[in-house]
Amino acid sequence: MSQNPTACLLVIGNEVLSGRTQDANIKFIAVGLGEIGIPLREVRVIPDIPETIIATVNEARAKFDHVFTTGGIGPTHDDITSECVAAAFGVPWEPHPEAWARLDARYAPGEFNAARQRMATMPRGATLIDNEISTAPGFTIGNVHVMAGVPRIMQAMFRNLAPTLTGGPPIRMGAVHAKGLAEGRIADGLAAIQSRFPALDIGSYPYYRPDANGVALIAKGNDPDAIAAACAEITTLIASCGATPIQGEPLA
Amino acid sequence: MSQNPTACLLVIGNEVLSGRTQDANIKFIAVGLGEIGIPLREVRVIPDIPETIIATVNEARAKFDHVFTTGGIGPTHDDITSECVAAAFGVPWEPHPEAWARLDARYAPGEFNAARQRMATMPRGATLIDNEISTAPGFTIGNVHVMAGVPRIMQAMFRNLAPTLTGGPPIRMGAVHAKGLAEGRIADGLAAIQSRFPALDIGSYPYYRPDANGVALIAKGNDPDAIAAACAEITTLIASCGATPIQGEPLA
Repeated sequence: MSQNPTACLLVIGNEVLSGRTQDANIKFIAVGLGEIGIPLREVRVIPDIPETIIATVNEARAKFDHVFTTGGIGPTHDDITSECVAAAFGVPWEPHPEAWARLDARYAPGEFNAARQRMATMPRGATLIDNEISTAPGFTIGNVHVMAGVPRIMQAMFRNLAPTLTGGPPIRMGAVHAKGLAEGRIADGLAAIQSRFPALDIGSYPYYRPDANGVALIAKGNDPDAIAAACAEITTLIASCGATPIQGEPLA
Repeated sequence: MSQNPTACLLVIGNEVLSGRTQDANIKFIAVGLGEIGIPLREVRVIPDIPETIIATVNEARAKFDHVFTTGGIGPTHDDITSECVAAAFGVPWEPHPEAWARLDARYAPGEFNAARQRMATMPRGATLIDNEISTAPGFTIGNVHVMAGVPRIMQAMFRNLAPTLTGGPPIRMGAVHAKGLAEGRIADGLAAIQSRFPALDIGSYPYYRPDANGVALIAKGNDPDAIAAACAEITTLIASCGATPIQGEPLA
């Protein structure tokens, strides 16, 4: 996967750090980025503190090909992502004419108040990410893509943004699992398979489900033939331990 | 909350970054740390890459009072957290006699193989975190607490670890919500309340539920009286907009 551009996700907001909110965005974005060949390499969950947001955006955009942010672009005092991204880029934070026009049209006369005008205020040079759910757009500046935190709105923005990005080959995944098998019994054999397929990431994930315990073995990479070959070797390894290999993921 | 020690969580493992696995640990740890007065200030999800783990552990342990890690302490080739933490601290990674004895006693003769012995190999100076679910212990070295990634095992470890940590006053939370209210209508009033209660974090979280949309207003901090006073002002603010304030969080 070395030919793939890389991504970092910044989840901005105190609500995940306090445990009030169960994050629902990481998995969606991770899967979506895998499909367009821009694998997610790091996630950071950070609080609504300007210095932290500015420093993290600048660190991430220097290190990864793409940075995605969720959260902090609403109308309230704790929504500070947009102005912090402007500060990170060292550009003015100013009304975006197209965003302004969309929001002005959405609200009844007199309702497009100062707080809501913040949602149409963006770093200079931002291009909009459409939001057909609640109008207020996200935006892209440089390699940073700023999206809402509410999952339904974020998902709409991501679907609109993804086709505009140039990814590498999609990340594919093969899976074999075995109920009742302890991963300690196949560890040596699995390490040998990993060493024979250095271009793949081979992972071992024990599961503890109401119906059964077991282990899921995952082979991930760009090359479907290599994934198939590795899964065949994993299948043989599981059988050699007297367990029954099952193709695919264990059911949740 | 400035008198509280701080925490960072490192979620180590490719499975969350690929989207294969929905993280189930962040929220549990965030809530548990809030209860013992060690608020979670940052989460990083990072891959199973030694240089990344080592650098991130060293950055986090210098910046936060406590660092918690989940994942990567099993027996397979992709379980490299323990040896990376040893490298981060610059200490040998060697058999831990007590961990070794526990695991040796758990397995049938001949089954405590080389892969499983890795689970009893730890940074020199580590103290054990008990694991009554599957025996293999986590450990603490310095201000870094290394736990399993499987939620049920992590939770057992966290419950054993938490009473040994010295926290600050617990982080308390008050909530008021209003169905059908758009946050853009109360943003100015809410900012004014935040400015009157600078020691609290006041957050505004719109929700989109099958039964109703609305906004949840959260006041968080150490001082129960300040939280109650802020919630009373929020209640008045909501009512002044013609909406009905409801004490507590909206039902999930």
